[in-house]
Amino acid sequence: MLYIIGLGLCEETDITVKGLEAIKSCEKVYLEAYTSILMVPKENLEKFYGKELIIADREMVESQSDEILLNANSLNIAFLVVGDPFGATTHTDLMIRARELNIPVTVIHNASIMNAIGACGLQLYNFGQTISIPFFTDTWKPDSFYDRIKENRDLGLHTLCLLDIKVKEQSKKIYEPPRYMTINKAIQQLLEIEETRNQKVYTAESLAIGIARLGSSTDQQIKVGTLNQLLSQDFGSPLHSLVIVGSRVHILEIDFMRFFAIDKQSYNEIVKKDYDI
Amino acid sequence: MLYIIGLGLCEETDITVKGLEAIKSCEKVYLEAYTSILMVPKENLEKFYGKELIIADREMVESQSDEILLNANSLNIAFLVVGDPFGATTHTDLMIRARELNIPVTVIHNASIMNAIGACGLQLYNFGQTISIPFFTDTWKPDSFYDRIKENRDLGLHTLCLLDIKVKEQSKKIYEPPRYMTINKAIQQLLEIEETRNQKVYTAESLAIGIARLGSSTDQQIKVGTLNQLLSQDFGSPLHSLVIVGSRVHILEIDFMRFFAIDKQSYNEIVKKDYDI
Repeated sequence: MLYIIGLGLCEETDITVKGLEAIKSCEKVYLEAYTSILMVPKENLEKFYGKELIIADREMVESQSDEILLNANSLNIAFLVVGDPFGATTHTDLMIRARELNIPVTVIHNASIMNAIGACGLQLYNFGQTISIPFFTDTWKPDSFYDRIKENRDLGLHTLCLLDIKVKEQSKKIYEPPRYMTINKAIQQLLEIEETRNQKVYTAESLAIGIARLGSSTDQQIKVGTLNQLLSQDFGSPLHSLVIVGSRVHILEIDFMRFFAIDKQSYNEIVKKDYDI
Repeated sequence: MLYIIGLGLCEETDITVKGLEAIKSCEKVYLEAYTSILMVPKENLEKFYGKELIIADREMVESQSDEILLNANSLNIAFLVVGDPFGATTHTDLMIRARELNIPVTVIHNASIMNAIGACGLQLYNFGQTISIPFFTDTWKPDSFYDRIKENRDLGLHTLCLLDIKVKEQSKKIYEPPRYMTINKAIQQLLEIEETRNQKVYTAESLAIGIARLGSSTDQQIKVGTLNQLLSQDFGSPLHSLVIVGSRVHILEIDFMRFFAIDKQSYNEIVKKDYDI
């Protein structure tokens, strides 16, 4: 049996009881470590699970997936994924391959940014499509997310922006250190693209929410303000996410966001000016 | 401390280790029982948690929330919610009230339909806004979901439809037995509204996915077909959900959905006819 197990958002205890029981039944346990990270080191997980973890990087999963899978024909194998197993395309790929090989697969779900983002005070059914903001380089600035944000904002919907993670990226055969995009960098890039595309999809004065270390029991940070206000805030260590608030807001959402406002007075002014509430 | 703890999707072991530890530290444990249900009876939960559960219905939460909250000033109180704590507006309301009363609140996240729906094979970032389909009566047929589905489909996005749940609804002081909308009933209502509104947002031939008991390790069912094909399928006991597939699909999504096709040949024909893949 291949178990694909979501680890949740932050700490080792975020795993479900069902997930932990499954790990304990497994001969080999892989930890997927390139689409997201937990906030605890591998050693803590190993101690908590009572199992040794094999780090599965993108290279290994893409080149050795059949090896991982075929083992699961006779043994219990676990593949651990931060968040929920269906958060990233790579895991979907692994599941399709397993089905093609007739390997039995059990998925154990968990929280991920896609539902836990409700913690920012906005209702999940008022979100449009989720977008990803990739790290720009001097010569490569893909901006298709701009069109997606426009589609959401034309409907008044909120946009969850997932920020880029680069773990063990190879550049000329040299591995670069991991990089996690900050909220500040994401906002810089968003404003840069708005300046280029100039369709007034959003401005530096648009209301947004910065979320850092979502789900951490000790260290979660949520701040509400204009993109400009958030730009100068320090959100600390990763992971960071950003939400651009749509115009179709419920009074409960306005009230909830107020708790997280960087500056309550300016928040009230923005709400009065931009929102029909 | 008030703990608001997500229970996940189905069974008692879907709770996180963090959540279970929190419950064990609590003096009083409420189980919210009107926005969703687990697939196990209350007694199993009580045995698993080693705690007695107080069923919190809508009436109690709305009329006695201050009582629940004020206890949390001196004691550890848990409020258990199926799925993730931010799945329903009522819990948001409770959190806002707690913050106003300066009661410390800890949220413990879990999987919910909003992220676990990825199990149907569609990528979460290709979903538009989520809609709810309420039970129609002879005289009350609210159809605002039709406009939301249109907005999603105009952009080529998938639509997750949450189906109505009526638990302990009061009608003339008599409590009605709980009712859970089936996929079949939802499709009937969708087609009824399409006939009335007639904007060709979808038809009986549109591709959709029926999902029953999502997350159950023994009993999950996913079926892919046209609305018409799904209409005659028996999905068994609750909970049911429905996804209307958008036109903006990735080849991986097409491949994954094929595993769940009611009829592979007709699935391949639909994909060839309706999707540019």
